Amino acid sequence: MTMATPPRAEGEGKWCFEDFVVGRIIALGDRGISRDEIVAFAREFDPQPFHLDEVDASSSVMGGFCASGWHTAALLMRLLCDGLLLLADSRGSPGSTNLRFKEPLRPGDRLQARATVTGARGSATRPDIGIVQLLIEAENQYGKPVISLESTVMFGRRPA
Amino acid sequence: MTMATPPRAEGEGKWCFEDFVVGRIIALGDRGISRDEIVAFAREFDPQPFHLDEVDASSSVMGGFCASGWHTAALLMRLLCDGLLLLADSRGSPGSTNLRFKEPLRPGDRLQARATVTGARGSATRPDIGIVQLLIEAENQYGKPVISLESTVMFGRRPA
Repeated sequence: MTMATPPRAEGEGKWCFEDFVVGRIIALGDRGISRDEIVAFAREFDPQPFHLDEVDASSSVMGGFCASGWHTAALLMRLLCDGLLLLADSRGSPGSTNLRFKEPLRPGDRLQARATVTGARGSATRPDIGIVQLLIEAENQYGKPVISLESTVMFGRRPA
Repeated sequence: MTMATPPRAEGEGKWCFEDFVVGRIIALGDRGISRDEIVAFAREFDPQPFHLDEVDASSSVMGGFCASGWHTAALLMRLLCDGLLLLADSRGSPGSTNLRFKEPLRPGDRLQARATVTGARGSATRPDIGIVQLLIEAENQYGKPVISLESTVMFGRRPA
């Protein structure tokens, strides 16, 4: 992966819309996952057998026990928050598309994530806001893609 | 909403691929959300200010404190599990698309969800599995759409 991190020099302000140049790649850091976390999330939000306990590999297309895709997506959101949104003037998101679960996330795995700026335009209705398209991807410790999605995120524009 | 529920007569088996007829609408039930749940999820997965505490309405496009979109999606997944997947021979999902956050989910709100079968085809590589496209939607207690997405889900085929 080619990586770049937000330049957060001492005293520098938060990232604004103007910092999201198409093609820019932002490293979002990494995070592990435990069996207990997988089961706790599944009990609350996705209690399918293959997210709760060891099961026969044939019981799903994922080949046995693994994290809920929505858990994987939520972990990716946390990496996006810590690595980008909380360092920026983020104003929320109207949605995402092309959410793909490429490889199951299993206990002891580690997600490493990045965001690529794929589009940026001013808001037609709110002059203080710009709209950024991000391709957000994470791979596991073996370098295999685990999850990807395309998100639309609003950011405040830098005062002139 | 036009609603239908899975016909689960005494002794009837789980839903299989063959039960997912295009156009069928499946009621997924409803579920409320509290301030404590919103904050707990946000602390773990999406600690942006507007998901943690009351904030100025201008700080986001959502007009103040509301649940993380990923929390709303996870709640919708739970409704999909309880109302459909756990009653069916579900084998997992490769992903979703067109995830849209239409209206913020706030403390005390109640999500009511449904799934519409929009596509169904056999797997080209696994004769025991069929692939179903579902449009999954939820509205709040005022009848306003809150979230929608299109998911691909694998189901076991009924033995001949």
